[in-house]
Amino acid sequence: MKKIGVFTSGGDAPGMNACIRAIVRTAVYHGIEVYGIRRGYNGMIKGEISRLESYSVSNIIQKGGTILRSARSKDFMTKEGRQKAYDQLQECGIEGLVAIGGDGTFTGANIFYEEFGIPTIGAPGTIDNDLYGTDFTIGYDTAVNTALDAIDKIRDTADSHDRVFFIEVMGRDSGYIAIPCAIGGGAEIVMIPETDTSIDYVVDTLRTGWSRSKTSFIVIVAEGDAEGSATDVAAKVQQALPHMDARVTILGHVQRGGSPTAADRMLASELGIACVEGLIAGRKNEMAGIINRKLTYTPFIDTITKDKPINPEFINMVNILSV
Amino acid sequence: MKKIGVFTSGGDAPGMNACIRAIVRTAVYHGIEVYGIRRGYNGMIKGEISRLESYSVSNIIQKGGTILRSARSKDFMTKEGRQKAYDQLQECGIEGLVAIGGDGTFTGANIFYEEFGIPTIGAPGTIDNDLYGTDFTIGYDTAVNTALDAIDKIRDTADSHDRVFFIEVMGRDSGYIAIPCAIGGGAEIVMIPETDTSIDYVVDTLRTGWSRSKTSFIVIVAEGDAEGSATDVAAKVQQALPHMDARVTILGHVQRGGSPTAADRMLASELGIACVEGLIAGRKNEMAGIINRKLTYTPFIDTITKDKPINPEFINMVNILSV
Amino acid sequence: MKKIGVFTSGGDAPGMNACIRAIVRTAVYHGIEVYGIRRGYNGMIKGEISRLESYSVSNIIQKGGTILRSARSKDFMTKEGRQKAYDQLQECGIEGLVAIGGDGTFTGANIFYEEFGIPTIGAPGTIDNDLYGTDFTIGYDTAVNTALDAIDKIRDTADSHDRVFFIEVMGRDSGYIAIPCAIGGGAEIVMIPETDTSIDYVVDTLRTGWSRSKTSFIVIVAEGDAEGSATDVAAKVQQALPHMDARVTILGHVQRGGSPTAADRMLASELGIACVEGLIAGRKNEMAGIINRKLTYTPFIDTITKDKPINPEFINMVNILSV
Amino acid sequence: MKKIGVFTSGGDAPGMNACIRAIVRTAVYHGIEVYGIRRGYNGMIKGEISRLESYSVSNIIQKGGTILRSARSKDFMTKEGRQKAYDQLQECGIEGLVAIGGDGTFTGANIFYEEFGIPTIGAPGTIDNDLYGTDFTIGYDTAVNTALDAIDKIRDTADSHDRVFFIEVMGRDSGYIAIPCAIGGGAEIVMIPETDTSIDYVVDTLRTGWSRSKTSFIVIVAEGDAEGSATDVAAKVQQALPHMDARVTILGHVQRGGSPTAADRMLASELGIACVEGLIAGRKNEMAGIINRKLTYTPFIDTITKDKPINPEFINMVNILSV
Repeated sequence: MKKIGVFTSGGDAPGMNACIRAIVRTAVYHGIEVYGIRRGYNGMIKGEISRLESYSVSNIIQKGGTILRSARSKDFMTKEGRQKAYDQLQECGIEGLVAIGGDGTFTGANIFYEEFGIPTIGAPGTIDNDLYGTDFTIGYDTAVNTALDAIDKIRDTADSHDRVFFIEVMGRDSGYIAIPCAIGGGAEIVMIPETDTSIDYVVDTLRTGWSRSKTSFIVIVAEGDAEGSATDVAAKVQQALPHMDARVTILGHVQRGGSPTAADRMLASELGIACVEGLIAGRKNEMAGIINRKLTYTPFIDTITKDKPINPEFINMVNILSV
Repeated sequence: MKKIGVFTSGGDAPGMNACIRAIVRTAVYHGIEVYGIRRGYNGMIKGEISRLESYSVSNIIQKGGTILRSARSKDFMTKEGRQKAYDQLQECGIEGLVAIGGDGTFTGANIFYEEFGIPTIGAPGTIDNDLYGTDFTIGYDTAVNTALDAIDKIRDTADSHDRVFFIEVMGRDSGYIAIPCAIGGGAEIVMIPETDTSIDYVVDTLRTGWSRSKTSFIVIVAEGDAEGSATDVAAKVQQALPHMDARVTILGHVQRGGSPTAADRMLASELGIACVEGLIAGRKNEMAGIINRKLTYTPFIDTITKDKPINPEFINMVNILSV
Repeated sequence: MKKIGVFTSGGDAPGMNACIRAIVRTAVYHGIEVYGIRRGYNGMIKGEISRLESYSVSNIIQKGGTILRSARSKDFMTKEGRQKAYDQLQECGIEGLVAIGGDGTFTGANIFYEEFGIPTIGAPGTIDNDLYGTDFTIGYDTAVNTALDAIDKIRDTADSHDRVFFIEVMGRDSGYIAIPCAIGGGAEIVMIPETDTSIDYVVDTLRTGWSRSKTSFIVIVAEGDAEGSATDVAAKVQQALPHMDARVTILGHVQRGGSPTAADRMLASELGIACVEGLIAGRKNEMAGIINRKLTYTPFIDTITKDKPINPEFINMVNILSV
Repeated sequence: MKKIGVFTSGGDAPGMNACIRAIVRTAVYHGIEVYGIRRGYNGMIKGEISRLESYSVSNIIQKGGTILRSARSKDFMTKEGRQKAYDQLQECGIEGLVAIGGDGTFTGANIFYEEFGIPTIGAPGTIDNDLYGTDFTIGYDTAVNTALDAIDKIRDTADSHDRVFFIEVMGRDSGYIAIPCAIGGGAEIVMIPETDTSIDYVVDTLRTGWSRSKTSFIVIVAEGDAEGSATDVAAKVQQALPHMDARVTILGHVQRGGSPTAADRMLASELGIACVEGLIAGRKNEMAGIINRKLTYTPFIDTITKDKPINPEFINMVNILSV
């Protein structure tokens, strides 16, 4: 392995730059040439590929987003697109790839290997954390802290006005972001895709709280909850409790950005090193991850097909702690 | 003046606690008893009044929200309500009031004085800054910095994905928050109630940018802009530019909370002192403010009826700086 | 177990309040009366003990420091002091204790049990992380993020002036804080108590960097490093490199404060619950901890006598990543 | 004026990049070519000069430090050095300069104009704020907020341990940073170069506080105070109060870095525009500043020779507010 390429794909996540930095520096450290591919598979197809040196990744460890940019690629879903991508890599002499992204990214990498024999090692870069093969994904810790910081600010105003706040956090398929936001944000209720939390339960909890002189409440709603968005949930609850003074806040894309936390920089650095050293060792089509504080490599196919269920005790914690 | 009361009213703002602290400490310093009235005029009517000592306001200078809580009061709009409020103040022997709030708060205080002769001095506590009689209101600097911090995070992801972000900031009647967010956030376009920014202008600006290889854009929309909410604006622009990859974020109540900035703590402290010393000096029905770095007192009636127009050059700055 | 007491002892750490909150709420949830003991063992001896209700711990989860205050107690090291403490607990009817602190705290609790039969369960509250029986201590993640945030700011100025910065972080006996600061802060060198990093090595690394056109450097020094403080190290290096433009910053007590991170709030909440449920289950003289994401209880004696060595690979990571 | 150069000089300050951006964009807007000169006068002498385009300053508004780097130059103090600088500028065709820095920078620019006729307009870039000709300097607001954020963290631990903290902030010649840190940080005492605060006064204030059950204290010491550094002050006070549990923290270079606040980005943007438009209008050897919210140009000689005294009432505020 003399030349490798690195790219970011799918939604961006804080820590991607720290991971790119680790990948480039590790390659340089081991005497391997490394190329940055811009805009994910799209840039691979179009040949947006350029050499990266050690200094190219100076002073990026603390930056949100990805200097290589990211995109979702329709063209790469076609054989024709992948052929073009292969031709571009061939032209540069790139023999292996490091992909920072999620399951969509790894699905593409798997197919690409089958067709063209270019091995890829992946790093889990997504704020959502719902990826099998690693305890935490790169960007997750930052996203949770960003959301929590916003919730702290909202609680200031909730307390000052005796209000009920319905706060929507990211999580289309899972409550990984919602759970620590609820526990760490001192919320009374959390609503996540993995469990059923009925509107009746919300109404009862608020009523019980009021009867015990509690005056402000925070309800965390993961965007993928079965009862709908935070706006939907608030409207349904308002019907049952017309006197409730409610407000809705959707945290939105703020959760994707920002300087990565220490934990995300560490994780990104460890996994960036592991990706390159994995490629060197002949690994392919596996994702580097940390499970129980140990480095592991998980086949892409498992990261795509297997679930990483959330610890159900966390839901119970919300109930105990808001007693 | 031997006994005074302090309360917060209207929307809460960061720095209200710093102001309460300054009011209490200044009263104690001058040998005056001070009482905290909870929940604004509502608490005045209901007698939610209690003595505050110097230590009661320890360790609150850095806190968002208001320890005295705030509310809008329908009852105080009635003569009957104000009579009850007066009776409660009489019972405690309160001879003067300090009100932290906005024009609604001061309107009530004016009527209350005419009817019952209780003098009030006001401190401008609102994140909106559109209050005549002071260059800056308490909470404004913090709200702008909070919004800007969010915009910085969003730009990370905008840049990474070549997107157009429409970000809605607070400002129902003015662009005071939107303008520094646009200039400080490196936005390409700002839309505020005070000026007309047509959808055509937005479309043209984006087209021109793309033609010059600019790939990501930020449009700041004050919530009171004539073209509608950020969601409305984005939808209209999308119609003209169907290929635009747009996202909308509404910053919302996050802007109201958080620990006050240094400038807000200073302003709140100066004005808190000025309110109490104004009352002692026999002032009434005036708002303390800082204009051109000098302490001033402005009659409530002026703060209610007069406009504080935004500097039109700031709009031009956005155009120059996004060249 | 009908009545329990909770206290914080030793150096304060962010997340202690989140842990107190979890302890109080869990006790209330299980129908147990809970008492707050102020100023650690000192307050136990003096009877600074008062009932805590669920609302007593509202709105503290996000606060640094400890509402129960903390202190080191000489009196508790004497039999007489412990007798007084026992008498005070007896008077309140307290049958079990939850102690948030470090190995000093647990040493005291062990002796106290042997003499008076009052069982204690401990939660690891210290920013230092060098405590056997848990992967992470409460406050550690926050301290590292605080230090890293400061290092990011210093790098701005280091880069602008082509300077070498020697930054001292906490860690009298270990490099637990220094290591993620070095990796996450993009430092070129890290000096920790666990390993020997000679002044010659520092000098050589700087010389090599300069020869490769690197112009600014960050050296992270744990306060307990064998070569001395950051000031000492800088002075020694300066002797060999008289033209070096060096600056020293000692981060100091800033690292102890601040609002706890999401991870610290989660950990504090989990362990707070575990402490109370451990006491209920009849456990005694054990520390609750999380190892490999699983709740564990470790005898106090092990937390005091056993080492938790740092992963030596982390040192190597600094070298690879600063290539 | 067809070609201008821009450089930063002296100590770096947050907002310098925002100012560089405004200067470049304003030049482009007005059809003027703009060149970046690296490392201040040193780079001018050595010809470290390169063309800047609008995109060269994309995404830097939020960054601390200065992308042009800064340095103090001994060579420029010699006629020979200045001759070389002039030759370099001639070679590029640069007809005017914009200098971001402090009084040292402007002194050099004045001499340079007298000798070689190259006009300079300056922007006040220094965290210290002690510069005549502007109410606030670029970087000051950020430095104060950074220091205050650290003080907030330290107060957490001060409160938890009943300690006296002596915190040293920047300010060799003035208390501009110390004053808002003391007022906004809720400090009991502030010691600044402009006034005499005796050790006896500190001792008395602490004694009075203890007698009134106050248990923790914060003393802010500007580095240029007549009683010495925070370490010196603490040692002197400790002699009189041997039982005092004191800690010293020197905030140091952290105060120079970090992302600029909204106010600093606004100020930097306004002044950057004003510098270029001033040069176009034929101004020379003046510093752009904002006084009472109005743009002004002040001759360099005045910024160098005149004092900007601190408002003495601020000291009194510390006394009132810590009552």
